[in-house]
Amino acid sequence: MEYNFRSDNESQADSRILEALIQANSNSAFAYGTDTYTTQLDRLFSDLFETNVVAIPVSTGTSANSIALASVTPPWGAVYCARDAHVYCDEGGAPEFYGNGLRLIPVPGDNGRFNAAQLAATVSANQGHGVHSYAPASVTLTQSTEAGTVYESADIAAICEVASAQGMVTHMDGARFGNAVASLGCTPAQCTWKAGIDMLSFGATKNGCVSAEALLLFNRPELRDRVERLRKRGGHLLSKMRYASAQLQAYIDDDLWLQLAANANRQAATFAAAVDNHPEARLEYPVQANEVFVRWHVEGFERLAQLGMQFLLMPGQDDLARLVFSHNTPDQETAGLCQALEAVV
Amino acid sequence: MEYNFRSDNESQADSRILEALIQANSNSAFAYGTDTYTTQLDRLFSDLFETNVVAIPVSTGTSANSIALASVTPPWGAVYCARDAHVYCDEGGAPEFYGNGLRLIPVPGDNGRFNAAQLAATVSANQGHGVHSYAPASVTLTQSTEAGTVYESADIAAICEVASAQGMVTHMDGARFGNAVASLGCTPAQCTWKAGIDMLSFGATKNGCVSAEALLLFNRPELRDRVERLRKRGGHLLSKMRYASAQLQAYIDDDLWLQLAANANRQAATFAAAVDNHPEARLEYPVQANEVFVRWHVEGFERLAQLGMQFLLMPGQDDLARLVFSHNTPDQETAGLCQALEAVV
Amino acid sequence: MEYNFRSDNESQADSRILEALIQANSNSAFAYGTDTYTTQLDRLFSDLFETNVVAIPVSTGTSANSIALASVTPPWGAVYCARDAHVYCDEGGAPEFYGNGLRLIPVPGDNGRFNAAQLAATVSANQGHGVHSYAPASVTLTQSTEAGTVYESADIAAICEVASAQGMVTHMDGARFGNAVASLGCTPAQCTWKAGIDMLSFGATKNGCVSAEALLLFNRPELRDRVERLRKRGGHLLSKMRYASAQLQAYIDDDLWLQLAANANRQAATFAAAVDNHPEARLEYPVQANEVFVRWHVEGFERLAQLGMQFLLMPGQDDLARLVFSHNTPDQETAGLCQALEAVV
Amino acid sequence: MEYNFRSDNESQADSRILEALIQANSNSAFAYGTDTYTTQLDRLFSDLFETNVVAIPVSTGTSANSIALASVTPPWGAVYCARDAHVYCDEGGAPEFYGNGLRLIPVPGDNGRFNAAQLAATVSANQGHGVHSYAPASVTLTQSTEAGTVYESADIAAICEVASAQGMVTHMDGARFGNAVASLGCTPAQCTWKAGIDMLSFGATKNGCVSAEALLLFNRPELRDRVERLRKRGGHLLSKMRYASAQLQAYIDDDLWLQLAANANRQAATFAAAVDNHPEARLEYPVQANEVFVRWHVEGFERLAQLGMQFLLMPGQDDLARLVFSHNTPDQETAGLCQALEAVV
Repeated sequence: MEYNFRSDNESQADSRILEALIQANSNSAFAYGTDTYTTQLDRLFSDLFETNVVAIPVSTGTSANSIALASVTPPWGAVYCARDAHVYCDEGGAPEFYGNGLRLIPVPGDNGRFNAAQLAATVSANQGHGVHSYAPASVTLTQSTEAGTVYESADIAAICEVASAQGMVTHMDGARFGNAVASLGCTPAQCTWKAGIDMLSFGATKNGCVSAEALLLFNRPELRDRVERLRKRGGHLLSKMRYASAQLQAYIDDDLWLQLAANANRQAATFAAAVDNHPEARLEYPVQANEVFVRWHVEGFERLAQLGMQFLLMPGQDDLARLVFSHNTPDQETAGLCQALEAVV
Repeated sequence: MEYNFRSDNESQADSRILEALIQANSNSAFAYGTDTYTTQLDRLFSDLFETNVVAIPVSTGTSANSIALASVTPPWGAVYCARDAHVYCDEGGAPEFYGNGLRLIPVPGDNGRFNAAQLAATVSANQGHGVHSYAPASVTLTQSTEAGTVYESADIAAICEVASAQGMVTHMDGARFGNAVASLGCTPAQCTWKAGIDMLSFGATKNGCVSAEALLLFNRPELRDRVERLRKRGGHLLSKMRYASAQLQAYIDDDLWLQLAANANRQAATFAAAVDNHPEARLEYPVQANEVFVRWHVEGFERLAQLGMQFLLMPGQDDLARLVFSHNTPDQETAGLCQALEAVV
Repeated sequence: MEYNFRSDNESQADSRILEALIQANSNSAFAYGTDTYTTQLDRLFSDLFETNVVAIPVSTGTSANSIALASVTPPWGAVYCARDAHVYCDEGGAPEFYGNGLRLIPVPGDNGRFNAAQLAATVSANQGHGVHSYAPASVTLTQSTEAGTVYESADIAAICEVASAQGMVTHMDGARFGNAVASLGCTPAQCTWKAGIDMLSFGATKNGCVSAEALLLFNRPELRDRVERLRKRGGHLLSKMRYASAQLQAYIDDDLWLQLAANANRQAATFAAAVDNHPEARLEYPVQANEVFVRWHVEGFERLAQLGMQFLLMPGQDDLARLVFSHNTPDQETAGLCQALEAVV
Repeated sequence: MEYNFRSDNESQADSRILEALIQANSNSAFAYGTDTYTTQLDRLFSDLFETNVVAIPVSTGTSANSIALASVTPPWGAVYCARDAHVYCDEGGAPEFYGNGLRLIPVPGDNGRFNAAQLAATVSANQGHGVHSYAPASVTLTQSTEAGTVYESADIAAICEVASAQGMVTHMDGARFGNAVASLGCTPAQCTWKAGIDMLSFGATKNGCVSAEALLLFNRPELRDRVERLRKRGGHLLSKMRYASAQLQAYIDDDLWLQLAANANRQAATFAAAVDNHPEARLEYPVQANEVFVRWHVEGFERLAQLGMQFLLMPGQDDLARLVFSHNTPDQETAGLCQALEAVV
């Protein structure tokens, strides 16, 4: 018995996504995003988000984030982000590459989030020195966060107000956007553009696709050309883009994305409850999406692993583990995990 | 009746490729290229090319080319290429982006090719001025070429000798590499590393894949780290890379790639013969792979289009058309095209 | 006897320039360009050019050109220039560096110049392919040219009209701008912004300064911030900028720059007349500024060198020499050169 | 009465430096650094530092630092530096620009310095994640520091050992290197390459030059080409470089640089003693070079300013002032400052 709670990046694609990909293969189609699968995306995402959306498919979340930030940040501009943000810690400098040497400035905060006051203080401490300093240009926040928590729409709105007062553009890294929306129970619009978000990296790969992400621009059609130029120069203008676009269509059709995310969240909540009941193990952060961080002794984690539970220890910390639940994690595997946890005291 | 000879980028994926992709979905797998589909690629490509190969999957041919050139060309280095090379004319400056401002220098030549003497003369004319000039760093040639022709292995070897004498690294853009090998009837090794090629963008998407390209390094393992860094920063390290790698495995398994390319070439040859027999239309270049360029009067092309034949006129030239034949072009469609051509005099 | 006609880059500074530099040392002064020597430059250059000018001192002509082009050309933008332009042939890729991978596209022409029709044809041949191509962004012309010729104001105006029709910004590389204005006998305004030029690299170092160049923006105050950001990031915001600014003030005061250039031009004209009268040597280009290119047999050049005349042969061409006359070339040295030429038949 | 303690960047050039500049104007000279003033620099600096030195003159400290770091740090490499380092806080992102998106990672520490253990801990916390993280590439420390303190040679050696163990190259930002050496009383060699430093930005402008900095490479001749390429692309290859090189020659001749720095340090020490004796004002950091940071109430600083003393308050802190003493600060001005301080209680 091997149950995989290592990462939603390791999960399979949902069968309905695969079927859409196969369906897209039934005929020839125009290349480089001029096919009808792709040209429909603006309308479909505009419907989903209830506003004017430009939807740009790309290969990866890293490219979506980097292209987004580079499109609104000059090389001498600063991007404010959480200290553990993927763009800052896990993308090998892709934002700096696409942004020709822009700088990411981490904002302190708790539970994977920062708040409006923390942002304002950090911006204030990093400017005021003219050309000698980086100029504040953009803010990015991750929804759901790297800590498995979720920003409330009101918190996002407060952050976006600070950004707007400084003339900064706002971006959301939505690698796990579905998990956040499923958790909040709001509309996609409410926690994005209605709260002041300008751009969203709409992640789909982790939550059931083969390879499909989209960069969404909310009511900012003037950015399309820059974004498309950056995508082309980055080598992300797929010649057979229809296969990515067909996945995206199936993913948002009939709220499939929210159903998939809801399962992942539900499994996480089940396990979080088991941790809460455990005499020793404890939750490191509030569990609000599909990731559970557990603080425990190393021997406990070793026993859990011996029982066939696969998960990751955080780098440099053998008493902190991350368990990720996926769109296709079955109840039975989560139950098995909970039993294994109970068995180790 | 609509027959599509516009581009192999518009063709479908082969069913065996799709099956491999579906098969790769049967279980969870490690992320970011640590899965077994991907880790086997070095061995499989080493077998195919009969030497030590590092195989790096990427999303697009543009990224394969750009990462390859940037990994061996400093920002102050020059890349020599054909005047109509894809890297120079069709990639929106991706090589300059990945290479932080390197310069592409076009080499004159005929039929989409340049030769060793033309390369030597161009290099000579562009250097000798120390830091004031770009330093010669790399050479890239396209196989099969943008004109639908093919370099003989001996011609490649002569070019690589000139490159080597200048300390330049050699790269082959093999977006249609299968068509070239099928045309030459040589082994993949003969027209690449045995002729002096250091790196190959091994294209698969045009010739039957959904989305799969690989950058191959021949006996240059020391370049792996730079290439992997560039891939990550470019956002091309796919989280679910197994789906691309599985395609590549199926593509080279049992010579599928050569069978697919052979069909495309055969259809092109059939049509080329029809053009040769036509009283007015004539072939612009020798037809050696799967592209046929036809010089004719605009009225002829218009009639052909009215008969349901889809193809592209070259930009700014209404008397020059390109017709591309694909891995899945059926005999019947080519026969229909030939009949249509004959019907228009 | 050694007379130096190798380059105006080798000439001394004029004594009035040195005096200004020494005068600027009489007291302490604000740093990083906030001193009064520097803050007066906008007004002084606005007076000289009879319009609103932003004047940005930098260290070198290369940095002036690169910053100018990068400030108006996105990374995916093309800069059109003459085939032998300094930015293209002699700056080691500085424009591509500052411009994050922009592309320089050479325009064919004669005598170091291109004309409006040649520009229009080249732009037309290099676009129309959307994100796959570079976008036309700017045009740069050199005044006086690398061939020692000068553009008439009407020719500049015609070029700028083509540029404007394509939405391109115009830049003039004025490394030898004084020689051009002295040659044309026009006002500085006439051959720049009145003809449609947006930005000028106003060279002073070659024509009598120690180290002083200025990038001038004509009626484009909105570009100041970008230019100043690029200057800072390039490391050209001098801490003790007053010394450069004091040189620039002295250089344009009382038309010193035009007097200096006029001497250089007069010496060149004297020598050009001697070449015209010579039975074998001939002028390669019309002599309109301070550079004379002579086509002759190699033995002639060798004899001239043996007689103590220092000059450069063009790279790869031992039958083509360049002789440059400077602001401080004395009549006697030019006379000596002419005599030496006459002596060699 | 106005006494200027704002910055050594506002001080005049020393008369011996000016004389050398004037002397360099007595004849024509080769351009672009091939003149004899420049070609002698390697030997002169090798003598001064008692080892093999490559000396590269540049225009500014920012360019010296940026070129140094970019020459040894790939775009995916991290540069470790102090939290208040000039390269991190005051250069507008020039290192990121020259380094094509490298990342500066601040190391915590006290009094403007970090130590070996702090460096090791920070490096350890920022790596281990393969291509997803930046790779450790270089370390830069500032001597004397931004806080007016000085690293002991033994502390430098300990830092360089940590760097070396990680394969990192070491750089020293010596914008005020003369002040540090004068303070330590060691040889220039002892606190640089003998302690493990690979590259030094040898500052001269603040300490008595018009405009002259040199990047020194210790026993690393293989870096020369990269450094010269970066300098050219940055636009810092001065056409009339002799004027900068002549300044540098005069600056190090007969220990002029140390005499000048010693005066600045002595004035700072005098004022530091006065602060120590003051009932309210106190020194923020140990005074070891030519900068004095004073913590006091805002009314005190206001009175001091009213008495004609010019100095800067630190950004965002009206109770912390910086006073800088220069190579040419006369005893009388420092005495006046001390009296003013005593007068304000």
